[in-house]
Amino acid sequence: MSLAPWRSLISRALHRNRSLVYARYFQLATVTKNGRPANRTVVFRGFWGETNKLKIITDSRSQKFTEIQEQSGGEICWYFPKTREQFRLAGEITLIDSNNFDQELQQARQSTWQEISDNARVQFAWAHPREKRANFPAFSPPPPDPIVPLDNFCLLLFAPLQVDHLQLRGEPQNRWLYSQNELGDWETLEVNP
Amino acid sequence: MSLAPWRSLISRALHRNRSLVYARYFQLATVTKNGRPANRTVVFRGFWGETNKLKIITDSRSQKFTEIQEQSGGEICWYFPKTREQFRLAGEITLIDSNNFDQELQQARQSTWQEISDNARVQFAWAHPREKRANFPAFSPPPPDPIVPLDNFCLLLFAPLQVDHLQLRGEPQNRWLYSQNELGDWETLEVNP
Repeated sequence: MSLAPWRSLISRALHRNRSLVYARYFQLATVTKNGRPANRTVVFRGFWGETNKLKIITDSRSQKFTEIQEQSGGEICWYFPKTREQFRLAGEITLIDSNNFDQELQQARQSTWQEISDNARVQFAWAHPREKRANFPAFSPPPPDPIVPLDNFCLLLFAPLQVDHLQLRGEPQNRWLYSQNELGDWETLEVNP
Repeated sequence: MSLAPWRSLISRALHRNRSLVYARYFQLATVTKNGRPANRTVVFRGFWGETNKLKIITDSRSQKFTEIQEQSGGEICWYFPKTREQFRLAGEITLIDSNNFDQELQQARQSTWQEISDNARVQFAWAHPREKRANFPAFSPPPPDPIVPLDNFCLLLFAPLQVDHLQLRGEPQNRWLYSQNELGDWETLEVNP
């Protein structure tokens, strides 16, 4: 699969906004079992090798894990404050938990675990998210093995199907839609903001 | 209706993040007719008087207008970079367009139009959003009347039903859930991050 034209635009935006640590955060929307929207901030963990897929991590005890198991569609909204541009990425999410038997995906899960910080890793050993607040010891576990992921560590691979890029800078603003045709090639359409 | 306990927390966050213009932006997720999530950045236009409802504006020619007409559920994800805290507000959206006959709501629509900047107003006179890019004249219309809203100007009132407040600062992080009981009173639960 060839790299999509919007991928280098995101890399450029990340570079130009690199002074802001939160420029690596975006909002991931999914749909709950009851058909209602859910929306939360997550951290961009890089693209998966030379593909168009974005890496996100989550805890299999979290609500989004269950939600994505039932409905794999997602939309990322990524606003870059410094360059004042927004990417909306609509796509499909693949969950890779400890039970996934695909060797290549399991390898991706393990290397992601190894790449994240100690601080990010230890949170997977904390008390169950969203349950009644536990006492302090539940949040000071021994540091987990930095090589072998905890069972509840889960990698999400987000594969965009359509991308909407809006630049607020410019008079008027600029906007492009990227989508795949039947051959899987990406096409670009310049549209009104 | 009494003010919800999370309202003052949002006001405080807005105040502490006031040096960042984009701290007034948040991501609004909705569900499309096909049951897929949609997510975009919008601007917080203040609370509606002394209520818990948030004001957002949109163009009735936009996709979100049609989406909300069909599915009124929404989830706002609001990240405040400076104080490193997130509010997730799940709720119901009321659309107030030029055809709305409720006098109080129509009044809210008109005063919101009067409060926004010339720059924000003129965008409602631009070419149809998301259609093939129009030529420059379509983006340099005469400035619209600052008193009487254009027909396609629409006010959204977002009424939260549940609020999830996460503070990343703190060892460990802090998190609270706010929800309404049967009497309509807000209850607070401290939960694990």
